[in-house]
Amino acid sequence: MDSFTYYNPTRIEFGRNKENTIGELLAQDGIKQVLLVYGTGSIKKSGLYQRVIESLEKSCVQYVEFGGVISNPLLSHVNEGINLVKANNIDAVLGVGGGSVIDSSKAIAAGAVVETDVWDFFINKASIEKALPVYTIVTLAAAASEMNGNSVITNEVTKQKYSIASVLLNPKISIVNPELMMSVTKEYLAYSAVDIIAHSIEVYFTAVDHPNFQSRLVESIIKTVIETTEILMEDPTNYDARAEFAWASSQALNGLTTSGTGGGNFPNHMIEHALSALFNIAHGAGLAIVIPAWMKWYKEKNLSQFERFAKEVFGKDSADEGITTLQRWFDSIGAPVSLPKGNIPREAIPEIAQNAYGLATMWGMGDAYSVKSIEEILAYA
Amino acid sequence: MDSFTYYNPTRIEFGRNKENTIGELLAQDGIKQVLLVYGTGSIKKSGLYQRVIESLEKSCVQYVEFGGVISNPLLSHVNEGINLVKANNIDAVLGVGGGSVIDSSKAIAAGAVVETDVWDFFINKASIEKALPVYTIVTLAAAASEMNGNSVITNEVTKQKYSIASVLLNPKISIVNPELMMSVTKEYLAYSAVDIIAHSIEVYFTAVDHPNFQSRLVESIIKTVIETTEILMEDPTNYDARAEFAWASSQALNGLTTSGTGGGNFPNHMIEHALSALFNIAHGAGLAIVIPAWMKWYKEKNLSQFERFAKEVFGKDSADEGITTLQRWFDSIGAPVSLPKGNIPREAIPEIAQNAYGLATMWGMGDAYSVKSIEEILAYA
Repeated sequence: MDSFTYYNPTRIEFGRNKENTIGELLAQDGIKQVLLVYGTGSIKKSGLYQRVIESLEKSCVQYVEFGGVISNPLLSHVNEGINLVKANNIDAVLGVGGGSVIDSSKAIAAGAVVETDVWDFFINKASIEKALPVYTIVTLAAAASEMNGNSVITNEVTKQKYSIASVLLNPKISIVNPELMMSVTKEYLAYSAVDIIAHSIEVYFTAVDHPNFQSRLVESIIKTVIETTEILMEDPTNYDARAEFAWASSQALNGLTTSGTGGGNFPNHMIEHALSALFNIAHGAGLAIVIPAWMKWYKEKNLSQFERFAKEVFGKDSADEGITTLQRWFDSIGAPVSLPKGNIPREAIPEIAQNAYGLATMWGMGDAYSVKSIEEILAYA
Repeated sequence: MDSFTYYNPTRIEFGRNKENTIGELLAQDGIKQVLLVYGTGSIKKSGLYQRVIESLEKSCVQYVEFGGVISNPLLSHVNEGINLVKANNIDAVLGVGGGSVIDSSKAIAAGAVVETDVWDFFINKASIEKALPVYTIVTLAAAASEMNGNSVITNEVTKQKYSIASVLLNPKISIVNPELMMSVTKEYLAYSAVDIIAHSIEVYFTAVDHPNFQSRLVESIIKTVIETTEILMEDPTNYDARAEFAWASSQALNGLTTSGTGGGNFPNHMIEHALSALFNIAHGAGLAIVIPAWMKWYKEKNLSQFERFAKEVFGKDSADEGITTLQRWFDSIGAPVSLPKGNIPREAIPEIAQNAYGLATMWGMGDAYSVKSIEEILAYA
């Protein structure tokens, strides 16, 4: 087992009605005014917006509104948020929404306290030394952004979907109420399931070391995601299934599964980020296309772990059966499992590979993944 | 799944030689002088003491020494430590040792900042509102004290082994170097394994709710502990086995396995605390006596979870087989599995039950565990 630092100071408030405590929680931390970040209005339709506002007002926490975050959130919008913070007396960022909203909130929190361009953090030209505190109320379980310090933002000018990571961006408090996730469409439930599984398997397959406990943890997460997704496809308001799905999602990318593994890498995310930067496909849909292709290409490099995956997760006897069972499961829940199914032309493979390679270099995978090898992977898709 | 708060702000620094960074880590946090708490001198024999001192001196962190913590640590000794802090200009407590040392460090950290008697916290007469920061270097994996806010102290006057819990007592940083654990005797390795399993199963069996993910997590911890204990009995210096054992130990009692379970209780610890308060038996040895007895007594109250345990952990088909397999495994590693094997006379059962009942009341189990039912449990031991 390799050496590691595990440090996750995010406090999770999990359960029904917890969003009604947000004003009190902020006031306890001495927060006077927040930037209230949200998406394209679904929180207004659902009534969540109103409950949050009431809670803030009850505790005399002021707010400046900043809606309009879209999926695959944009740098230009983040910069608007940063300007809003700088123009007002704001001492925390409150994100209410899914991964895109929380990722935007973190980027704003990092960019609002410096004079340099926030994108410099994403291209490793500057490092994050401070940030405003971030608070979240999560409405979609997938990104685990509520329990880590990561943020993924798309620069629409350069067509780069890049990321930052710092414990300074770990939310101080995240509120996870599974009831808020019950209105998620079946389509997005499927994409979320794929995303959580992707977070779980990236390091599981690519790590230097495979401690049994961490492998078991990953298998536990995947089994939980599969069984709860199947329940939720039939019964979207099943509270316990939503709750287990949400908690498994947070565990998949909070630093626990990767501790001691010597650090693997994220090739499926690397390729998917190129897909969604170029085609604006949903992240989970892009991953469903990439994962089975990558697994077929990669399996010989770590055959024993692929055999273990097949056996422990699906009770299958070979690496190949494990891969095809996972691919069929993605298909069964309605996620696209090939480029054509995702309406992405095969002719785009060279462009996708080129874009992905930029990120491979950025993430220290430039040696392991050439443009040619990314094209080989996509040939399976 | 029940509502919960998960908040574990302890930073873990895990791996070889990490103890040599303690001075730097303390200096980074602005700590000028620590109370250096340790046990009966094994850290001096092993050379760890010297390395810690060198690291502190290199970073100009001053220290006041406070050795002499014994297993089942004593209130009188904690009070000496509190007086030492109050008489000096000390801004943190650094515990170097096993669970007893860390538990003592926490009690000192809580007691040193108030004028009231620290024992008031243990008997619920006062609540912990502040504490000095605690840092730890762990030499024995068992208590998980390095990653939680719990402290168990024995009042030798009243013969009460009672506990406190507060996130304010969570160590700020804990250093876990598996190499420091290689000199643990086989006897204490066995007791540690039993202790970790005890932490895992208490809530697993007694919880209001049993989310699958949390149950899987517990089963993963137990399987990891069993397989690594068997490796370490043959090969005590196996680094990877020590490392997995240590990390599983931290996970067993850091709040993760119990999140969403609606809160179970700790009947095995309740009875064991009476055993060790009265007979000064090692905690893990006492647990090996209590656990199989309690399981036999309790199994009908939650049969499906006992059947699940038998199947998932041991591949057995019935609750009874699960219990006897665990008991035989405790026996095989050299832990006492009955009162006679622990040299505790059966005649002491009424006295043990009476003492345990005091704790049952304290821990809110007074309704579920009468003196008579504790006697019934001990009749199986």
